[in-house]
Amino acid sequence: MEKVTIAGAGLVGSLLALYLGKRGIKVDVYERRGDMRKVQVDAGRSINLACSNRGWRALSGVGLEESVKESAIAMNGRMMHSVEGNLTFQPYGKEGEAIYSISRAQLNKILLEEAEKQPSVDIHFHHKCMDIDLENATARFLDEANQREIQSEAQVIFGADGAFSAVRETMRKKLRFNYQQQYIEHGYKELTIPPTADGQWALEKNFLHIWPRKQFMLIALPNTDGSFTCTLFLAYHGEKSFENLQTREQVSKFFAEEFADVVPLIPNLLDEFFTNPTSSLVTISCSPWQYQEKIALIGDAAHAIVPFYGQGMVSGFEDVRVLNDLIEEFPNEPILEKYANARKDNGDAIAELALRNFIEMRDLVGDPSFLLRKRIEALIQELYPGKYIPLYSMVTFSHICYKDALAIGKRQQKMLDQMLKIPNIENVWRTEAFTEVIHQFIKEFKDAVLLK
Amino acid sequence: MEKVTIAGAGLVGSLLALYLGKRGIKVDVYERRGDMRKVQVDAGRSINLACSNRGWRALSGVGLEESVKESAIAMNGRMMHSVEGNLTFQPYGKEGEAIYSISRAQLNKILLEEAEKQPSVDIHFHHKCMDIDLENATARFLDEANQREIQSEAQVIFGADGAFSAVRETMRKKLRFNYQQQYIEHGYKELTIPPTADGQWALEKNFLHIWPRKQFMLIALPNTDGSFTCTLFLAYHGEKSFENLQTREQVSKFFAEEFADVVPLIPNLLDEFFTNPTSSLVTISCSPWQYQEKIALIGDAAHAIVPFYGQGMVSGFEDVRVLNDLIEEFPNEPILEKYANARKDNGDAIAELALRNFIEMRDLVGDPSFLLRKRIEALIQELYPGKYIPLYSMVTFSHICYKDALAIGKRQQKMLDQMLKIPNIENVWRTEAFTEVIHQFIKEFKDAVLLK
Repeated sequence: MEKVTIAGAGLVGSLLALYLGKRGIKVDVYERRGDMRKVQVDAGRSINLACSNRGWRALSGVGLEESVKESAIAMNGRMMHSVEGNLTFQPYGKEGEAIYSISRAQLNKILLEEAEKQPSVDIHFHHKCMDIDLENATARFLDEANQREIQSEAQVIFGADGAFSAVRETMRKKLRFNYQQQYIEHGYKELTIPPTADGQWALEKNFLHIWPRKQFMLIALPNTDGSFTCTLFLAYHGEKSFENLQTREQVSKFFAEEFADVVPLIPNLLDEFFTNPTSSLVTISCSPWQYQEKIALIGDAAHAIVPFYGQGMVSGFEDVRVLNDLIEEFPNEPILEKYANARKDNGDAIAELALRNFIEMRDLVGDPSFLLRKRIEALIQELYPGKYIPLYSMVTFSHICYKDALAIGKRQQKMLDQMLKIPNIENVWRTEAFTEVIHQFIKEFKDAVLLK
Repeated sequence: MEKVTIAGAGLVGSLLALYLGKRGIKVDVYERRGDMRKVQVDAGRSINLACSNRGWRALSGVGLEESVKESAIAMNGRMMHSVEGNLTFQPYGKEGEAIYSISRAQLNKILLEEAEKQPSVDIHFHHKCMDIDLENATARFLDEANQREIQSEAQVIFGADGAFSAVRETMRKKLRFNYQQQYIEHGYKELTIPPTADGQWALEKNFLHIWPRKQFMLIALPNTDGSFTCTLFLAYHGEKSFENLQTREQVSKFFAEEFADVVPLIPNLLDEFFTNPTSSLVTISCSPWQYQEKIALIGDAAHAIVPFYGQGMVSGFEDVRVLNDLIEEFPNEPILEKYANARKDNGDAIAELALRNFIEMRDLVGDPSFLLRKRIEALIQELYPGKYIPLYSMVTFSHICYKDALAIGKRQQKMLDQMLKIPNIENVWRTEAFTEVIHQFIKEFKDAVLLK
């Protein structure tokens, strides 16, 4: 691989350009939008996102972990807000394990800067993909600055062009390509909690705040400027839905009833509600991810997922890291099929996990028996250090592949379901004798809830 | 509904035009291809297809059952050809129940003729759909004769434009539209058994011939001119696959080993094999099928299925019949959502049934225990006339909706699985005492294997 075209200069596209550029590969990146370092990003569209271990590992591979972490905010756990305004805390992992809230725009800028520092990387903005020739790995892009078409030439085209990928569309139409797009019933809308008068965070800073309301939820992630970005996840249709929030009165009443404690913190609630878009949430699954040694999909283009596990960007970054490892390991061999085989099932697994986590976040986290389950899991983890890792931690704090994490996690869930049926479990789990019960359960599950 | 645009003048589009035209509705049909009454149809692409009761019912609604049946050939059952050339017969249903082989081109011509006889129907050929405006139910078509664009105006657009529907593509991109395209591992290729020297059929005429070979199969359907159209269904990749049939020697050897009895009947085997295309087989599922009272999908555009149940055209014709019934029943009400709700689950059900029937045709029909199962089912059917109807008959010879047929069929299968485990069942089923056993089984299954 000596010359590569990348469609898309988003987070995954620019990280990929950086990785390949550092290998001395000639890279041309074509991005439909303008240079986000120069223009304002759309308001109200996922301005911050979560980064965790898989993401840090990928960033550290290009020496960026430290600098990016400086502009990220650690979130040590979930802070649940009940309807009455009571708070409950649930840690994400062990002491010191956190996920990080970072600004999408800022991270993208860092990656673009670093990628452009590579002599072999060129980034072309305002270039719209018109057509892909799969057989020749060439693509036509319209340079919107002068309305001229240019043709890219390379050995490989990477489609890092997001959930609505043009590269994938060509594969969908021209190959025997399996494809699925599935929307959930919920949409989302972003709202802002600005900093307080003295420039501080209006809620506890180092948490992901959740207002779980079973069929819907509000969340808030901290930003470095003292603000929080809130996101309301709500069904499009039905009793409690965007459809039924048409007037300012309806919105006011809904927020006052459901999220009373946060209303005073969102001064522009009504204006933002009616100005910011309602965006949809889609899962996209496809195969194959690659065509010969010519075309490959990566990131959202290959596996767009719902945002509820905080693994959207992270799973794309892991794609890049794995691809780079394969180039390293097989320097003179075709690697795209290896890459696709290594990642496809993991893409499906994280898609499933992300859908399941929506139910956890909007419903289960408000349930005392769920929090008990989490405490028991923490106890098992202490008894089997490095062996028993709860599903959330496997996904978020380890590098176990998603597929294995999902499989082990399903068995863990089964075991915990049985444990929670033990009479008086609320108290039993605190007794010393419970240790032996745990050992028995692990034995009964033939160690299949543990890492190998 | 006074004015309607139909995209697609294939079988479903022209039948729909005919139905709506007979209601006095103004209909404009736009078809990308030329008038098939004037041009030759592509060789080697599904030239004949199966019609059965649901199809006849839809045709009889416009007075065409009789005339179409005249140019159709009844197939009373499956004739299985073993590797050694031995024949086994399995009837499709009761005495007198048959499915019919008809020419796609001939049927389409009849439907076009009849539709054009309606004063309110206009059919425009060589018009390519460029763009659909969902909100206004207008569409732009390129008239390829003069390269001019025209805009259709109507209250409703029907997408009857097939598996790769342009109308559906617009919905897929512009709505929160769930969509799946799934290819099977097999492709197909058509071959011809010409009439004998004296103009007769070279195989028994009134059967669907099958050469079941577990992972692949050949079938042959009779045509009115004395020929049969053969279709080879074979995996693209793997040991026995199109990939491994690259040379004339490979093809000759493969046919000689697997289909020895038919080789002498296909004189142009090798030329046809390398001239005719290898075509793929896709299942397409989507929702919603309709947008407001403006756009609706029908036929393959809504539910493209694999051909193994002979229900591809038939299920599309049933869409048209049901739609017409709804217009009749609710003359002054919106009906597109009712139509979509009535049909969507049935589309999914026939898609699943069609995939399952591939395994039945290529593998099970060659198995003695499968034929025993069919005989026992025929016996149960005799004992419960009009109440117990085997799945194949429910789908093919009844008007029970596909969804219910599938559900009842799954329970029937479970019951028969248990019956076939009875020791010495090969002989027991012929004894008089077996009647009581059947009654007991039916009772145990709480009549849920019977029609209501």
